[in-house]
Amino acid sequence: MSNGERDLQRIWTAGLIVIGDEILSGRTQDRNIAQIATWLNVQGIRLAEVRVVPDIEERIIEAIGALRSANDYCFTTGGIGPTHDDITVDAVAKALGVPVAVHPAARAILERYYADKGGLNEGRLRMARVPEGAELIENKMSGAPGIRIGNLFLMAGVPHITAGMLDALSGTLQGGRPLVSVTVGAFAPESEVAEILREAEQAVDGISIGSYPFFKEGRVGSNFVIRSEDSAKANAVAEELAGKLAEVGYATVAGGI
Amino acid sequence: MSNGERDLQRIWTAGLIVIGDEILSGRTQDRNIAQIATWLNVQGIRLAEVRVVPDIEERIIEAIGALRSANDYCFTTGGIGPTHDDITVDAVAKALGVPVAVHPAARAILERYYADKGGLNEGRLRMARVPEGAELIENKMSGAPGIRIGNLFLMAGVPHITAGMLDALSGTLQGGRPLVSVTVGAFAPESEVAEILREAEQAVDGISIGSYPFFKEGRVGSNFVIRSEDSAKANAVAEELAGKLAEVGYATVAGGI
Repeated sequence: MSNGERDLQRIWTAGLIVIGDEILSGRTQDRNIAQIATWLNVQGIRLAEVRVVPDIEERIIEAIGALRSANDYCFTTGGIGPTHDDITVDAVAKALGVPVAVHPAARAILERYYADKGGLNEGRLRMARVPEGAELIENKMSGAPGIRIGNLFLMAGVPHITAGMLDALSGTLQGGRPLVSVTVGAFAPESEVAEILREAEQAVDGISIGSYPFFKEGRVGSNFVIRSEDSAKANAVAEELAGKLAEVGYATVAGGI
Repeated sequence: MSNGERDLQRIWTAGLIVIGDEILSGRTQDRNIAQIATWLNVQGIRLAEVRVVPDIEERIIEAIGALRSANDYCFTTGGIGPTHDDITVDAVAKALGVPVAVHPAARAILERYYADKGGLNEGRLRMARVPEGAELIENKMSGAPGIRIGNLFLMAGVPHITAGMLDALSGTLQGGRPLVSVTVGAFAPESEVAEILREAEQAVDGISIGSYPFFKEGRVGSNFVIRSEDSAKANAVAEELAGKLAEVGYATVAGGI
């Protein structure tokens, strides 16, 4: 089966390693987890685990070892820029036991990109370094490409650059059936309807129901998310659940509140 | 040394486990990582690693085993509510090898909280269950308390409830010297000043410099973050760096752009 086709017989998973002191210090609000999770779902791949690790080589290597063997795919974000704190390529090369090499096509891309910006220098040339044997992932936003080697995908830390790289990868990874989510919202405290939820989940195989409380306009409510690989089943459970909630006096809003 | 005092001789660390299918599915944008990271810094504790895991007991147990032994403290968010998908307490009890018990004070809190809301039911009583031997963490927002057992802290998934729990814990955990960050911003592409950054970092022990590119008002720039436990040192490096950047034609903005 070639890349991009679907194998509906099994669940395809990915791990994600967010590399960056700026996330662990609280300075930067991560946006890549949600962005990559959403994109993976569309590809029929489930995000199974995320690890956020500091800019320390051994910690990155350890996380790569764990997540790339436990999943079909493993993504990283961060640490592929031009500065001294960008150590992802070296860590990945060590994790894979391969040397780091300058990729000729990456070098050519950077030469073109920086032609009218002062040309290449040592820092900029860093962004052409890849673990030997890697392919490039196109970056339409800012020149320096993402990197693919084996089941590893090295993406940028800046979310809109990663968005472009994901776009370039869309449809190229083999996946399974996308997970469908159907949401039903109600101004119902989840603690009042917990039993109804439990029964609704247990009544049907192949679905799960998540319950997410909120506070809005001074009122307590919950969104109930039915997840399944079978969209007809998810919709039927949502309808059934809405009926049960109506019986105990809670009007529901399809799509959530 | 009692709780809340500082031991400046060593680095205190915490791990964080974000428990929730809603984060891994991309449905919910996590806000607890940044919130807890920022709070820990003030306590003189560094967030050393984060794992986001699904609502699957074995995966939670595995993450707890790894992060609580590798760090002084281990926090979890999510999965302590009233519904069937709230399994954090059971997972923690199994990880610690202790039974789950109803905590009398938690039960009393919930009885009061729900007195005029229909009283306790099975779901609500779930929120009084703790791993045996646990203490409670006050929740001023919504009744159900957080839970502390050993070096483990179980917090809510809803960020503003966790904010209240962190407030209740402020100053009670032993930590070290807080990490200080001083930021200098410039409309300088990081790839042009990478060498200056590397030299600035290497010139002084006990500091690190992070480089974070941005795109603003159509211009490329970077914020450079100098981190150190010694604020005088961080400020001196920031001033030195601003001078070096000015020499190559980049005006800097203290505090970042």
